Amino acid sequence: MNERKTLKFNESGHLIIGGVKASDLAKKYGTPLYVMDKAHIINVCKAFDNALKSEYGDGMIAYASKAFSCKEIYRIVNSVGIGCDVVSGGELYTAQSVDFPSEKIIFHGNNKTIEELKYALECKVKYVVIDSLSEAEDLDFICQNKGIVQDVLIRVNPGVEAHTHHYIQTAKIDSKFGFAIADGSAVTAVKKVSSYKNLNLVGLHCHIGSQIFERKSFSIAVDKMTDFYKQIRDSLGLEFSVLNLGGGFGIYYTDEDKKYTVEDYTDYVVNIARELKKAIDSKGIKKPYLILEPGRSIVGEAGITLYTVGRIKEIKGIKNYLSIDGGMFDNPRFALYQAKYSVVPVDKGLEKPSKVYTLAGKCCESGDIIAEDCNLPVMTSGDIVAVLSTGAYNYSMASNYNRNRIPAVVMVEDGKDYLAVKPQTFDDVIRNDL
Amino acid sequence: MNERKTLKFNESGHLIIGGVKASDLAKKYGTPLYVMDKAHIINVCKAFDNALKSEYGDGMIAYASKAFSCKEIYRIVNSVGIGCDVVSGGELYTAQSVDFPSEKIIFHGNNKTIEELKYALECKVKYVVIDSLSEAEDLDFICQNKGIVQDVLIRVNPGVEAHTHHYIQTAKIDSKFGFAIADGSAVTAVKKVSSYKNLNLVGLHCHIGSQIFERKSFSIAVDKMTDFYKQIRDSLGLEFSVLNLGGGFGIYYTDEDKKYTVEDYTDYVVNIARELKKAIDSKGIKKPYLILEPGRSIVGEAGITLYTVGRIKEIKGIKNYLSIDGGMFDNPRFALYQAKYSVVPVDKGLEKPSKVYTLAGKCCESGDIIAEDCNLPVMTSGDIVAVLSTGAYNYSMASNYNRNRIPAVVMVEDGKDYLAVKPQTFDDVIRNDL
Repeated sequence: MNERKTLKFNESGHLIIGGVKASDLAKKYGTPLYVMDKAHIINVCKAFDNALKSEYGDGMIAYASKAFSCKEIYRIVNSVGIGCDVVSGGELYTAQSVDFPSEKIIFHGNNKTIEELKYALECKVKYVVIDSLSEAEDLDFICQNKGIVQDVLIRVNPGVEAHTHHYIQTAKIDSKFGFAIADGSAVTAVKKVSSYKNLNLVGLHCHIGSQIFERKSFSIAVDKMTDFYKQIRDSLGLEFSVLNLGGGFGIYYTDEDKKYTVEDYTDYVVNIARELKKAIDSKGIKKPYLILEPGRSIVGEAGITLYTVGRIKEIKGIKNYLSIDGGMFDNPRFALYQAKYSVVPVDKGLEKPSKVYTLAGKCCESGDIIAEDCNLPVMTSGDIVAVLSTGAYNYSMASNYNRNRIPAVVMVEDGKDYLAVKPQTFDDVIRNDL
Repeated sequence: MNERKTLKFNESGHLIIGGVKASDLAKKYGTPLYVMDKAHIINVCKAFDNALKSEYGDGMIAYASKAFSCKEIYRIVNSVGIGCDVVSGGELYTAQSVDFPSEKIIFHGNNKTIEELKYALECKVKYVVIDSLSEAEDLDFICQNKGIVQDVLIRVNPGVEAHTHHYIQTAKIDSKFGFAIADGSAVTAVKKVSSYKNLNLVGLHCHIGSQIFERKSFSIAVDKMTDFYKQIRDSLGLEFSVLNLGGGFGIYYTDEDKKYTVEDYTDYVVNIARELKKAIDSKGIKKPYLILEPGRSIVGEAGITLYTVGRIKEIKGIKNYLSIDGGMFDNPRFALYQAKYSVVPVDKGLEKPSKVYTLAGKCCESGDIIAEDCNLPVMTSGDIVAVLSTGAYNYSMASNYNRNRIPAVVMVEDGKDYLAVKPQTFDDVIRNDL
């Protein structure tokens, strides 16, 4: 595991998160349970924010809230002073419900509905990121009716696709999102969007991938985006004042991934800032307000999920199944992406791993697996295990599959714990049934 | 599409489901919208039930409610007189909330919690299907405390794994479910479970796969299970009175699948009944009470999902993206299984398909696709499309990913429509947020 001050085994072999014993949380709240390390969330936010401010100056870190959205996370993120991005009316509604400052909200999406666009304008979000020409047309029309001019960015595809340990440069991008620079559609979009009276095109947005460890990917993105800024300035006389480079910073799931610390995220931003400043100087373009949108990197490693071990099935010579009281309803990432996770026994930190288990969920489906090849001490029914790095895209993707209840989310900090999201009851599950 | 009396295009090219124009439903309830053809559900239930009764006699069709669970489906299924199976406390709670007769409920699951086992006994379910030895031990203990004896089945793996168009016979089964016959663990389980005073072992259950078109798979299952019944009778002197062959009957999604009619499902059951009667006679075993558990085949084709087309993005020589107002939050099956669907334009049934589209969802994720290679007439923003055969594992797997709201479920029958599940509101989405 990626140990840190606020997540580690103590001397007696008990997992401690935010100063609280994980098994005490399981006792107090029951399992399955999402637990979030508030100090880590804040530390990463601050690392990103400080690095941006000190190394680059004018800019904003916007938490990509699709990774984990609930009222409390918007409060926490706001308390640090950073912004956020939202990708739906529902995320915006949640942010609004705790008075998240709308001048720090960026609104994304490949298919924002008219209802969502209207709602975004009512909320006075800072930027709407235009994803298609018809959206620009609709937005201009709505703005005109409301008598407002909205600041907008355009999502472009710079031609670099970044993945965990590699990147590819591509001339044509097959994506439901945005406009490719390579085939000329980005220039067309810039011309078109800048022509609308009620839209104020201030810059561009790109998002090159997810779970990226290869820093060079971001350097290429900076290079391609600034090239394009220069091209637009030279050909259209348009100088952009904002550059949104999106997110995608990698986190530690298993030993296949790098063990990043808060300092590594600082370095990330410092590198991007330096590359960008260099590019600005060499290309002679106006220094843009820089936006970065980390999501997974802010909440991913902060979260762990606690499960109670139930049935254990050892098929000789084949596999040892450890069934837990959760499953793909609270964490569908193995089922969706064959995602890998580290699993630890929360009260057996002193025992040596001696057996390989497959962590199986309780859903009535063979594919309901949480993690394979888990090296653990000999486990018994009733033991609590923690699946690590579940803070991103777990609670946010949770369902009532098999009519299981979505677990609670608990925040821990300095030895204290509190509910951020109440656990569902059976009555919640049937609430809308008539 | 797999047309039928209650789902077809009318002469003017409008899609009619249950006597109601699909686009009228979209207007009345908004989109995305799950629509279920009640008559078709009832017809399939009756076909299964009648075939079982007339061809075999003593037995029960149990609707596998994990495919689609809400209050109304238990009412409908109960009105036909068939039973159901549940795989969690939540499904049982839903069934109970509409007084589904517990003597027709079968309780499954690889990791039923103690809480669930107790709840199942309180509800007096007909059979608990034992999935592990420790579960049997726990259940016996709970029964003893309650002073009751519970009828149970054991889930066994007969050594045939059936898929859509093929099956494999395997000596060892790697599964989180049940006990393999091949490696002797099924016999051990039978011995052990039958030794508990408070458990009454009446028979076995198997489930050989999903979306099965190859009837031979079921014949093999019948053969292997009756062989095993004979073996148990001969070696242990134990005569089982119940045989539960599970479900897995295929449905039509695209032209790669067979177009089954209600009569085909009748044939399915008739074949199984005949094979079973033959096997009983030839092996000289007691005729068991036969249980079949269709889920997908009852609700799958009955359901369609209506979406409004939003942004359209045509990338020359690459792909035409048709973005809709739903996505993997209401139908994650493409993201999970690369499942294929047929898509039809609900008001353009007279127009010839002339373009190939990819139906993309509105979630901020490249993998949020609903269907690829959709041959459609030229579509425009505002058009309504129906994705067919979405009655199973769509609503039941829906999430609030990206904080999107889970759509309503509407039942249609004889030209009338009514809400079965209310649409979520934003307040529903943040209801448990503190």
